[in-house]
Amino acid sequence: MSEFSPQLPTSAIAPDRTLNAKTETWFEYPVKIYPHHTDHAGIVWHGTYLKWLEEARIEYFRSIGVNYADLVNLGCEMPVVELSLRYHRAIRLDHHEVLIKTVLKMDGVRLNWDYQIVSLDGQELYVTAQVTLVGIDAKKGKIMRQLPPDITDAITRKT
Amino acid sequence: MSEFSPQLPTSAIAPDRTLNAKTETWFEYPVKIYPHHTDHAGIVWHGTYLKWLEEARIEYFRSIGVNYADLVNLGCEMPVVELSLRYHRAIRLDHHEVLIKTVLKMDGVRLNWDYQIVSLDGQELYVTAQVTLVGIDAKKGKIMRQLPPDITDAITRKT
Amino acid sequence: MSEFSPQLPTSAIAPDRTLNAKTETWFEYPVKIYPHHTDHAGIVWHGTYLKWLEEARIEYFRSIGVNYADLVNLGCEMPVVELSLRYHRAIRLDHHEVLIKTVLKMDGVRLNWDYQIVSLDGQELYVTAQVTLVGIDAKKGKIMRQLPPDITDAITRKT
Amino acid sequence: MSEFSPQLPTSAIAPDRTLNAKTETWFEYPVKIYPHHTDHAGIVWHGTYLKWLEEARIEYFRSIGVNYADLVNLGCEMPVVELSLRYHRAIRLDHHEVLIKTVLKMDGVRLNWDYQIVSLDGQELYVTAQVTLVGIDAKKGKIMRQLPPDITDAITRKT
Repeated sequence: MSEFSPQLPTSAIAPDRTLNAKTETWFEYPVKIYPHHTDHAGIVWHGTYLKWLEEARIEYFRSIGVNYADLVNLGCEMPVVELSLRYHRAIRLDHHEVLIKTVLKMDGVRLNWDYQIVSLDGQELYVTAQVTLVGIDAKKGKIMRQLPPDITDAITRKT
Repeated sequence: MSEFSPQLPTSAIAPDRTLNAKTETWFEYPVKIYPHHTDHAGIVWHGTYLKWLEEARIEYFRSIGVNYADLVNLGCEMPVVELSLRYHRAIRLDHHEVLIKTVLKMDGVRLNWDYQIVSLDGQELYVTAQVTLVGIDAKKGKIMRQLPPDITDAITRKT
Repeated sequence: MSEFSPQLPTSAIAPDRTLNAKTETWFEYPVKIYPHHTDHAGIVWHGTYLKWLEEARIEYFRSIGVNYADLVNLGCEMPVVELSLRYHRAIRLDHHEVLIKTVLKMDGVRLNWDYQIVSLDGQELYVTAQVTLVGIDAKKGKIMRQLPPDITDAITRKT
Repeated sequence: MSEFSPQLPTSAIAPDRTLNAKTETWFEYPVKIYPHHTDHAGIVWHGTYLKWLEEARIEYFRSIGVNYADLVNLGCEMPVVELSLRYHRAIRLDHHEVLIKTVLKMDGVRLNWDYQIVSLDGQELYVTAQVTLVGIDAKKGKIMRQLPPDITDAITRKT
């Protein structure tokens, strides 16, 4: 297992699927590794993962028919309000490509995402993460009372 | 307080200062806000904070006489193995400058950093974070049994 | 394949023995636009383009059977030694996706890339760019006298 | 001399100082080198320089009493419309700190910046660059007929 952090939180690798508003299966988003992702140690710089997690969220939205840029144009922003990452193994340039896996749980105006970053064959676990977004009314600058129905309907249909 | 996340974890805003290997006071590192830090919502992109936290760690090391690049040249890498952030308030381009405050606790080969990102006058809290590094022997690719004495001595002297 | 992992249109590259070492047609690499690409003005930050140009180069190499990470492992680095960009139109988040087009001309150990960044339908031109790489022997830290034959053969076959 | 590109353009290293709207001396902005600036080759990633050039521009503005964020709030954006860089020598993490030097020439609504990135003692030249900004009226989305008087006055006083 990992040389960095051998104990994986069970909840991260086997998320609870009994809750209602949770996607049943992991959404998968592959990313290729480029020099601009790496640092002097020859591995992916730790902050790069946040870009990949963001991309996976937006592609998940796209997969259920929600276009993030359209939401923004309608005045709905979804900033990150909390995140945590655990690095299990380093990713090197010559790993070529990895898989971002995510599962979404909606909790009112909060969207909670569980993540795993794994090798394409699923045998190596590199990173586990949790990210929480909250819906903001951009005009008022305040948390929304509820997310736009288009999003909640799309998420609910898929979970 | 924050419109995003009103309840702050007490441990983050009043870290325990009774432990031995912990700096007594916050180390402060000011950063200016540039367009490349921001995103389409007009605020600092959430991943930008990881750059600032990294810079603050390296400047902390410099302040106690440890040069991070020298460590690297000696074969000691210190990758991030865990991190968590909570976003309390957005930082905009016209906030001009903020303060990264950090306090370090050494736990064997693990370095645990508590962070606050605040306004220059200390009145606004934007982000709280915790980051854990672990010392790696770059040649062996394994966790060190102990950190180089130069580091531990320097940290101990300051805590 | 996943729609999120675009197939590279290798078929777009037609053999041409008349031009010196220049691909006859543009290699095309689509990129999606994410919040981390943008800045406070709501448009793609100007430095983001360098990431996309790098990705397009590596995908071009992959399309002709050259794996960039393998080159690096063999001690061949290809740093950028010159670049120029001209920004014709801003790219916004709600442009969703654009096309990076590139054509390569080999000049000894120098690789000269011409670029256009255009809309998917080719009707809008956002950016034009030129980038020059040079082959470096990483061990010696010096410019190579000639590129590895695997690369030159692969490039010549495709041009 | 440079191993990458020994011939420096004379105009870049000895810019013409006879023109009117040109600062007489180089504005200097020091930057420290952090892991997030580097790539797998152990050197500063080529796109990182664009961040430093941006920071130097904003600090130059600040030095003549112009606050960039205030300009933005007044509806004046200054996007980059052209840039070119020549890389003379690589910058490594253990170079610790380098100097961004810039000289500004105003040409109507166009601001032309010449740059050198050098070692702190001025003996090593790493990068030369030219960047052109143009003033945009953000509301109209059009190039301004003339820059706001506050900027032109401040620039003229200093040149």
